[in-house]
Amino acid sequence: MVQSSPALDTLIQELNKLPSIGRRSAERLAFHILQMEKSRAQALADAIVRVKTSVVACATCFNVSENNPCPICTDSKRQRHLLCIVENEYDILSFEKSGSYRGLYHNLRGTLSPLKGITADDLTVRQLIQRLKESAFKEVIIATNPDVEGDATAVYLGKILQPFDVTISRIGFGLPIGGALEYADELTIKRALEGRNSL
Amino acid sequence: MVQSSPALDTLIQELNKLPSIGRRSAERLAFHILQMEKSRAQALADAIVRVKTSVVACATCFNVSENNPCPICTDSKRQRHLLCIVENEYDILSFEKSGSYRGLYHNLRGTLSPLKGITADDLTVRQLIQRLKESAFKEVIIATNPDVEGDATAVYLGKILQPFDVTISRIGFGLPIGGALEYADELTIKRALEGRNSL
Repeated sequence: MVQSSPALDTLIQELNKLPSIGRRSAERLAFHILQMEKSRAQALADAIVRVKTSVVACATCFNVSENNPCPICTDSKRQRHLLCIVENEYDILSFEKSGSYRGLYHNLRGTLSPLKGITADDLTVRQLIQRLKESAFKEVIIATNPDVEGDATAVYLGKILQPFDVTISRIGFGLPIGGALEYADELTIKRALEGRNSL
Repeated sequence: MVQSSPALDTLIQELNKLPSIGRRSAERLAFHILQMEKSRAQALADAIVRVKTSVVACATCFNVSENNPCPICTDSKRQRHLLCIVENEYDILSFEKSGSYRGLYHNLRGTLSPLKGITADDLTVRQLIQRLKESAFKEVIIATNPDVEGDATAVYLGKILQPFDVTISRIGFGLPIGGALEYADELTIKRALEGRNSL
C-alpha cells in the first residue's frame, strides 16, 4: 500500500489512540478534518491544547474546573449538607446534566481494585474524610457504579464513613427508565428486585 | 447545570461537530483528552494542524498527498494503462488497503447530484478527459458507489468516455464476502443477480 501522506497517517494514528475510535473511524475522521475549513481544524486543535493547559482539579471536590475551588463548591445556592461521591469527573457531568441533584460532589478518582493494585491511598479517600471532619454534611450518597469494583468501593466507604454523624446511602439500581424487562440482563433484574420500593 | 469549565465545553463542542461523534461520545473523548499526558494531547493537536498545512491535492489524480504529483502517479511500477475513477480520496485509501489494484486513480471529488446542484463542472471531469487525451490508458474502471448518485455518475461517465479508445467497466456489486443472503437487503440481492457470472 502506497501511503499517500505521512501527515495524514500520523493523524489517523493519533485519532486511533482515542477510546472507541477504531482504525476505520480514525480514517474517516482524518479525511473529514482534511476537508474542514482550516480555521475549524485550528479551533479543534486549540481546544485540545487549551483543555490541557487551563483545566485544573478543584482541591476540594476534585471536579475538573478552570477555577480552584470549582464553581460547584463555591455556589452558595447548592445544598451544602448533601455530598455525592462519584468515581470520576465524567459522572459529575452526568449528574449535573440530569438536573436532579443540587448538593456537592466528591470525585474519588477511581475505585478500589486489588487486581490493578489500586488502594484507598490512590483515591481521594483521605481528602474525603478530611472534608467530612471539617464540613457539616448530613447525608452522603455513594454513587459508584454497579459493578464489582464500584460495589466493593461502596461497601468500603460505607464502613469508613460509619464514625461520622451522617446518613449514608447508595444510589438506586434497577431497570433504566425507558428500558424493558425483556431486554434487561439477569443482574439488573436481581438488583431491581432487591431495590424494590413499596407503593 | 453548572458548567465546570468553558475550555472543556469548547472541546466537547468541537469534537461534537465531527461526523459520527455525538454529544455523549464528544464528552467521553474530551474527558479522555483531559486525562491524557500533555505531550500526547499536543501530538494530537499538532497532527490536526499539520494535516491541514502539509497535505495538498495531486494535480493529476486529485488524491491527497504531501507531494504533487502524488506517489501513486509517479510510481513507475504501477500499471499505467489502468485508471480507476473514484468519488473521493477515502475510496483511494480503501482500494490501496485492499492491495488488489495496481493501476492509477482519478478522484472525481464527488458525484453528480441535480438535487444538490452539483454538475460535472463541480467535479474533476474536465481534468479526467484531459488525462485520457494525453495518456495511453487502455481500461477505465468506474468505481463510484452503488447508490443513486454514484450510479447516475457512472452512466454519465460511461457516455462521455465513449469517444476514447478505452475499455470502460464498472466495479462489481453483490453480496459482500463474509456476508449472508439472509442479511442482504433486496437491492443488494437484485444487483448480485444482475451481476452473476458463469462458473
